[in-house]
Amino acid sequence: MKTDLSLKTINRLVQYHCILTAMEETGKDIVSSPQIAELLKIDDSQVRKDLNLLGNTGKTKVGYEVSEVKLLIEKVLGFSKTKNVFVVGTGNLGLAIAKYEDFKYYGFNIMAMFDNDPLKINLTYNDKQVFHISKLPILAKEYDVEIAVLTVPRKNAQETADFLVESGINFIWNFTPTILRVPQNIKVCNENLIGNFLQFTKDV
Amino acid sequence: MKTDLSLKTINRLVQYHCILTAMEETGKDIVSSPQIAELLKIDDSQVRKDLNLLGNTGKTKVGYEVSEVKLLIEKVLGFSKTKNVFVVGTGNLGLAIAKYEDFKYYGFNIMAMFDNDPLKINLTYNDKQVFHISKLPILAKEYDVEIAVLTVPRKNAQETADFLVESGINFIWNFTPTILRVPQNIKVCNENLIGNFLQFTKDV
Repeated sequence: MKTDLSLKTINRLVQYHCILTAMEETGKDIVSSPQIAELLKIDDSQVRKDLNLLGNTGKTKVGYEVSEVKLLIEKVLGFSKTKNVFVVGTGNLGLAIAKYEDFKYYGFNIMAMFDNDPLKINLTYNDKQVFHISKLPILAKEYDVEIAVLTVPRKNAQETADFLVESGINFIWNFTPTILRVPQNIKVCNENLIGNFLQFTKDV
Repeated sequence: MKTDLSLKTINRLVQYHCILTAMEETGKDIVSSPQIAELLKIDDSQVRKDLNLLGNTGKTKVGYEVSEVKLLIEKVLGFSKTKNVFVVGTGNLGLAIAKYEDFKYYGFNIMAMFDNDPLKINLTYNDKQVFHISKLPILAKEYDVEIAVLTVPRKNAQETADFLVESGINFIWNFTPTILRVPQNIKVCNENLIGNFLQFTKDV
């Protein structure tokens, strides 16, 4: 992935990709920047600027070639580079992530799921097997996984994070409402859904 | 809520709130800005700047009063103003949102859930009852709800959004990987988890 893209630009490119995927499914070959802009309620010039970032975008006199722009977005965002991840916690959120088919198009590859509940062990969701959390260190080595998605209950978040760090996990995508204490070399991304909601509904 | 706050500022305030909540639970009365900054791996000056936004922050010679700063954040972010919402779709993601206890602290108040699966109707999750989607228009009026969280499968996303708009919903928090076509006066917030993941793991 181009490493100089801002999160806002990445998010717009992902949204363009959603639009192009839907267009491809309905057999639409050509799209114009105003069409994309209108769907996202953003400025046409923004769309053109973003698509220019992609390089040679298959622009014709009437618009952009849907399949070509889609592939260029995938290339720029590094979708083709598979990232192996573990999902830790198999509550509803963990299962939602495991079952979310579209993630795999972005190179998000769930290798296994983990829980400490004996009733969950060996269950399979969307072809992802659940292992006891004690198996994580050995499987992290075996599968060369250094990214974990943390979806355990808040009260278990810190101890689980400690265990992940000991197990060789270097990137924690944290869905728990906890700020984790981790060593300086460990990267944590705090997923903060409520922030989006608060901004979105500030006029309500 | 102060309407001039950026999403980045809102997200940091929510994270401070997480930290203060945890501190309150462990009986910690006073916190310093470097303590917060260290946990979030951000600059101390940023924390001080944000806390200054809150107004009179109960700063003592040794730091800030935990409970007072927590309350000020709640006031600035409008947590006390309850926002009634419907959750549409009761798959794992819908249930994860319904069961996510911490949302309620932010004024996020789920009034009911909706699905079209007869097997789901009348089930209750975390005290939230599931109704058939056909009941949504009348319940939206009855409960004065204009915010819906959309977690249905991608293939049903647009038709469900159309139905929500007809039913008087003005704000759609869209968790489906679909860009929805809605009238100009309807606000849509596209939740884009994969964008965060792509940016977070760009160095992997």
